[in-house]
Amino acid sequence: MKDWTQHYATRASRMAASEIRELLKLLDQPDIISFAGGIPDPDLFPKAELAKAFADVLTDPVRSAAALQYSVSEGYAPLRGWLAGYMGDLGVPCAPENILITNGSQQALDFIGKLFISPDDTVLVSWPTYLGALQAFNSYEPRFDALPGPDNNRTVESYRTEGGPGPKFGYAMPEFQNPTGASLTLSERERLLDTAEALDIPLVEDSAYETLRYDGERVPSLLSLAAARAGGIDTCKVIYMGTFSKSIVPALRVGWVCAARPVIDKLVLIKQASDLHVSTLNQIVMHEVAASILKDHTAHIRAVYRARRDATLKALTDYMPAGVSWTPPEGGMFIWLTLPEVVDGAALLERCIKEARVAFVPGAAFFADRSGRNTIRLSFSLNDEAKATEGVKRLAAMIRKVVAGE
Amino acid sequence: MKDWTQHYATRASRMAASEIRELLKLLDQPDIISFAGGIPDPDLFPKAELAKAFADVLTDPVRSAAALQYSVSEGYAPLRGWLAGYMGDLGVPCAPENILITNGSQQALDFIGKLFISPDDTVLVSWPTYLGALQAFNSYEPRFDALPGPDNNRTVESYRTEGGPGPKFGYAMPEFQNPTGASLTLSERERLLDTAEALDIPLVEDSAYETLRYDGERVPSLLSLAAARAGGIDTCKVIYMGTFSKSIVPALRVGWVCAARPVIDKLVLIKQASDLHVSTLNQIVMHEVAASILKDHTAHIRAVYRARRDATLKALTDYMPAGVSWTPPEGGMFIWLTLPEVVDGAALLERCIKEARVAFVPGAAFFADRSGRNTIRLSFSLNDEAKATEGVKRLAAMIRKVVAGE
Repeated sequence: MKDWTQHYATRASRMAASEIRELLKLLDQPDIISFAGGIPDPDLFPKAELAKAFADVLTDPVRSAAALQYSVSEGYAPLRGWLAGYMGDLGVPCAPENILITNGSQQALDFIGKLFISPDDTVLVSWPTYLGALQAFNSYEPRFDALPGPDNNRTVESYRTEGGPGPKFGYAMPEFQNPTGASLTLSERERLLDTAEALDIPLVEDSAYETLRYDGERVPSLLSLAAARAGGIDTCKVIYMGTFSKSIVPALRVGWVCAARPVIDKLVLIKQASDLHVSTLNQIVMHEVAASILKDHTAHIRAVYRARRDATLKALTDYMPAGVSWTPPEGGMFIWLTLPEVVDGAALLERCIKEARVAFVPGAAFFADRSGRNTIRLSFSLNDEAKATEGVKRLAAMIRKVVAGE
Repeated sequence: MKDWTQHYATRASRMAASEIRELLKLLDQPDIISFAGGIPDPDLFPKAELAKAFADVLTDPVRSAAALQYSVSEGYAPLRGWLAGYMGDLGVPCAPENILITNGSQQALDFIGKLFISPDDTVLVSWPTYLGALQAFNSYEPRFDALPGPDNNRTVESYRTEGGPGPKFGYAMPEFQNPTGASLTLSERERLLDTAEALDIPLVEDSAYETLRYDGERVPSLLSLAAARAGGIDTCKVIYMGTFSKSIVPALRVGWVCAARPVIDKLVLIKQASDLHVSTLNQIVMHEVAASILKDHTAHIRAVYRARRDATLKALTDYMPAGVSWTPPEGGMFIWLTLPEVVDGAALLERCIKEARVAFVPGAAFFADRSGRNTIRLSFSLNDEAKATEGVKRLAAMIRKVVAGE
């Protein structure tokens, strides 16, 4: 076979298959209890409403002609308008021109990398952070440094003392973070904004799990806080990303960016050059379904996921040995476990699959420096109470074995 | 408003709104006869078949759960399998592992840029070439040079004498090129492959219009010729891009890459980092519709487009003044006009819209160096015989005026 590597751009050297992707293949084996994939439960998809919306559009000769044709890169105008209203309800007064429709929020991450990152630029992320963000940004060859956060005492000065140019932007998931499930408090959000302002860098706010709050009071988004400080969205430097993947369905690939107009205008050009536009039909259907059922539907799925979270947390309390710790998440899909130092998450996974038929994601994948070897991520979205209990029991037994050196 | 430009990556400086995109907005004005957008006629969309396929999937509880869920980045397995057979019928024996599903072929162009282009690498394109390819590649900051072709006498040596590294890859649209409508002969294809082999560079073959041949015999694709030379697809260096946008509908955003496995494996990683996967539902529906109607449906749309091409060509012969030349295309959607030197395509367009209510795309947009000021592209896909005749009449009258200095 001829060699291709000589032809690749330097950035391609960083591209490697992800552990999560390989793990997703395990989900097909029915005897495995999986806490691995951070995916919604398909039993909760609003299938009837989606089927009706597709049928309504496709059986109307005028609507179907438009729904099946090329369309503008910024997105379907009524959906942009609806999302401007939705963002307004979340405390961000904005216009349709502040919205770009993307193929889920993963594509927004890629576009933000494309817009901002030159090779060797520094991007600030939390430690750990969303693996998909690391993958998307890595295509543009950045370095990573730690975002100011609850678990470090980074000052503005600490980012300036490295001799080179300062960081390029910061990336945060303030609500029920993937992978930790943790949320930033109001004062932590304010501190993040203070630092970003002092460094004069944009902040990227990934709010993929925003609709999945099970306890506690909603905390204002970074975007709403920044827009209030700046006197409006068009003069603030937070770029917000949302998605319907967790609240309606992932497969239609509909997400959005909400930001100042100059940034949206640039991202529209990137969208055009990257793949022209999001499926016209999917945007029209998502608009129809979201406008009619989002509120009631998310109330329903929250009730289901809340019960699963509670069952998983109870099982952890009941079965985990001493030396294993976790923090109860107020929402989202994830619980983050810190294991005794002696336990390696990747090795544990291998044994768990072979010997205990239970799966999760080793935590190291979520650290830009691949640290965190003794951490693991559990997703509770797919397992009912019985499965969650049985799965945690199996996992706990295996951790006991590893700690005992068996 | 705060300044964003300081935050952008250097590549972002090349991103500017395209003339074509601005022009597409004109299509909404009903009194304009448009030869501008290279888009399929929505009256030809197989709406009933698509409506049925969506309904079949969405009303089946098992299929709909999978169709609405996240899925693998390489694409829906049955569609990959079907496309492997389709490519086999086109003379390219291959396996499902040689196929990646993309959001139309525009996304394949972006991914190829991401995989191969480091800043200042040289990419060979034809002069003129597809504007969307220039836009996609420009995100990765290449230089452009001319591909060996019928209108130049570039030798292998001519690419080596520039001192720096040789070109990175070549990009060609051998069938009914956008914008010229021209196709490469078999010997021109062989010459292109000879040059690429001598330079040891991959060739990217964009075959977006492959299904739209109205006259003449099919010429083997670069991929089939290269695979035959190399003894199989996995040892050849042509990367083929196809799409259902012209043969079925564009809005579902389903296209594909067919290439050697090592390249597909890398592109799958890029797909994952860029936006995870193409809409699962859209892939399932496209598979169903393509497998059942592609052959008959494309025969039908070819008959319609052939008549429109013929009407447009006849009108050009009947009405264009001396000094305007064009070459009849054997397929696709475009006719390329070379106007008298004194006529500037962009200025002509402005007057045509204002004074004659007829639109097209100025040719300079398709040249990497923005030359070709006296060329224009006409798309014949949307206009029936009466409209084509009236539109060409209006255009010819305006060209006469400009030539006469009026």
